[in-house]
Amino acid sequence: MGSPQKPPLAHLFKGTFVHASRSSPMTVLQGHLLGVDEDGRIVFLEQADQQEQLAKKWGFKASDIRELSNHEFFMPGMVDTHIHAPQYAFAGSRIDLPLLEWLNTYTFPTEVKYKDNDFAEEVYTRVVRRTLKNGTTTACYFATIHTAASLLLAEIIDKFGQRAFVGKVCMDRNEFVPEYKESTDESVKETERFVRELLEKKSHISENDGEIKLVKQMFPAYKNYTDLYDKNKLLTSKTVMAHGCHLSDEELKLFSLRGAAIAHCPNSNFMLCSGILNIQNVQKHNVKIGLGTDVAGGYSASMLDAIRRSISASNICQINKVNETGLTLKEAFRLATLGGSQVLGLDDVIGNFEVGKEFDALLINPKASDSPFDLFAADTFEDIIQKFLYLGDDRNINEVYVAGKQVVPFSSSV
Amino acid sequence: MGSPQKPPLAHLFKGTFVHASRSSPMTVLQGHLLGVDEDGRIVFLEQADQQEQLAKKWGFKASDIRELSNHEFFMPGMVDTHIHAPQYAFAGSRIDLPLLEWLNTYTFPTEVKYKDNDFAEEVYTRVVRRTLKNGTTTACYFATIHTAASLLLAEIIDKFGQRAFVGKVCMDRNEFVPEYKESTDESVKETERFVRELLEKKSHISENDGEIKLVKQMFPAYKNYTDLYDKNKLLTSKTVMAHGCHLSDEELKLFSLRGAAIAHCPNSNFMLCSGILNIQNVQKHNVKIGLGTDVAGGYSASMLDAIRRSISASNICQINKVNETGLTLKEAFRLATLGGSQVLGLDDVIGNFEVGKEFDALLINPKASDSPFDLFAADTFEDIIQKFLYLGDDRNINEVYVAGKQVVPFSSSV
Repeated sequence: MGSPQKPPLAHLFKGTFVHASRSSPMTVLQGHLLGVDEDGRIVFLEQADQQEQLAKKWGFKASDIRELSNHEFFMPGMVDTHIHAPQYAFAGSRIDLPLLEWLNTYTFPTEVKYKDNDFAEEVYTRVVRRTLKNGTTTACYFATIHTAASLLLAEIIDKFGQRAFVGKVCMDRNEFVPEYKESTDESVKETERFVRELLEKKSHISENDGEIKLVKQMFPAYKNYTDLYDKNKLLTSKTVMAHGCHLSDEELKLFSLRGAAIAHCPNSNFMLCSGILNIQNVQKHNVKIGLGTDVAGGYSASMLDAIRRSISASNICQINKVNETGLTLKEAFRLATLGGSQVLGLDDVIGNFEVGKEFDALLINPKASDSPFDLFAADTFEDIIQKFLYLGDDRNINEVYVAGKQVVPFSSSV
Repeated sequence: MGSPQKPPLAHLFKGTFVHASRSSPMTVLQGHLLGVDEDGRIVFLEQADQQEQLAKKWGFKASDIRELSNHEFFMPGMVDTHIHAPQYAFAGSRIDLPLLEWLNTYTFPTEVKYKDNDFAEEVYTRVVRRTLKNGTTTACYFATIHTAASLLLAEIIDKFGQRAFVGKVCMDRNEFVPEYKESTDESVKETERFVRELLEKKSHISENDGEIKLVKQMFPAYKNYTDLYDKNKLLTSKTVMAHGCHLSDEELKLFSLRGAAIAHCPNSNFMLCSGILNIQNVQKHNVKIGLGTDVAGGYSASMLDAIRRSISASNICQINKVNETGLTLKEAFRLATLGGSQVLGLDDVIGNFEVGKEFDALLINPKASDSPFDLFAADTFEDIIQKFLYLGDDRNINEVYVAGKQVVPFSSSV
């Protein structure tokens, strides 16, 4: 029995799988079997009554199956579309100023320190550990202007097995913290050096009013903020712009046309008083959108926080009578998983449990010892998922997988 | 040495104490000694260099002192001014409707179940454990219309050693869930029975627009919502009204005149799209204000969440250009401790570490094993406090004291 020419499966799970698709923000598949091959790819996700046929086709025995507990479930790993790794050093503190003052007072003086590789190693190790523990399997990291430290971040990510983009920051204007900038030549040269290994375009747009005014003043020839990026060939299908709180419909249309995406970072928007993104208007314009923590403008490195805050942002649009309906929790769940993968152009690789994609997944245990929430007999499975999304934390994220490889709990070698 | 007639101290701590006063939202006292007598009262809080004199006066030895670690600190226990204990059963789920629909669809059908004492015992035990673990030393609980279950809640609170008010709900109108109401006679009789043990007036006001319209329609003779309570002698210095998002300046003036207080519940206001309270306007009118979780309109039973959300609410008032400045984290800290004690009329008993008050306190360990946040060498003590307030959770709340008695970790007898 079994076909001997097939390599054995790397994982075989039986239980509940919760994920999003284009047509449904959340599907709960109970009593299913999921197989992952040695390359980390999902090779099947079928109802458990197909077990016998699957066993024949893939050559496994019933004893190879790992059965989840009744209350446990797998969900896709979360995608943080915007996080500043160096700012993790002060995440949760020094967050009492609007964007431009906050940058000059706290952020740039901290980012200067990453010329020191030892400092970089400590913070970058902690931020990768922390985000992985919190269920971020893919992150789009900003580093600093320092090439060596930025490459070190990539190395640490690789060691821990997280999936990530790392961007070196380029900054040839900085009147307030002059020790934190490069000459334009340096910037180009160092970035070329950096890009030899890592390639992506990433930036910020239209976060708050003060910033928009500054941009207008610096570049009066452009129609608007989006036009500035577009005319300089920086608005493409590989572009991820953070925030976008104040984009006009005209600008959103251009985003849609170019295939550019928005990283919605509600915690940061609240903390820096930047503005409230109207997510539903972004979606109406068919602009790709995902969630980001924007550490340390956002104080939390957890995508669960981003999910919760995106609900608040949307509800505030209702309270402010901008919208009549709000984002549902299921839609926020989709933004944090499939949405993020679309933003980063990875939706053919990750984002849900479709066959052929890589297995980036979180094993959620809502009854973990010391769980931060309580379950009661009347709770349906959907209630349990909601309680986890609203109240759960890393104590409920018992295992994390990236491309089929278990990365949390951390191996003793990292 | 020492005066033999003085009873020995129950506790003697040396380290850092963080608390609020009327004149300062947060004072950090490093290198201090605090003594608690056998009645649970704070008898001194002095700089550690006073140790010798204090030892003489209070008759203690250096070896009696418990010294905190460098990064640890005590803060006052937090005061949840508004929480619905029965709704804890579904906290974190079923939270996708505005107030009135939410009440009829989820809340009243759940509250009906508290005619069953076994169900009540399970949920009430869990909510008291959970809030204590989260650092709520004092809670103002709503129960249901059921006298037996409401008394049971008081019994459980007593067993765990939490400080609390418990209010039986009175409801003689309920067209939507008719099985969840009393006749007016029943309500008066049952409430008298309940009040024999527990006495306080507590309610809700001006939470959302739909509710305000309904009240206007039911009671057209009154000038406004506040007038309705006032003319019926329910607006007194013992009154705690939850929410108050839509109170006019005229109503706030009446609150101030009567000494009535507001329980600000930002998580609930966001989730039920009720509105955004302008905290600073409430404070400008000299109305007493504290924070509440409002479980399960608010999904979190943690006052740390209420602190974080109060910052968001205030920042949204800035984004909406209602205010030019926002609440600081220190001010939110004061609301959750001293403010809450003022709201409940307990500020001569608890709320901070003034000598003569009872010792309701949390021992915070920012370096607890499995702490949800990271500290770095550059963090000042103030950064550490901020990180705890923004990112900490029950893992950092190592010990909880109420009136000098240690109640967390839970004793094996509860």
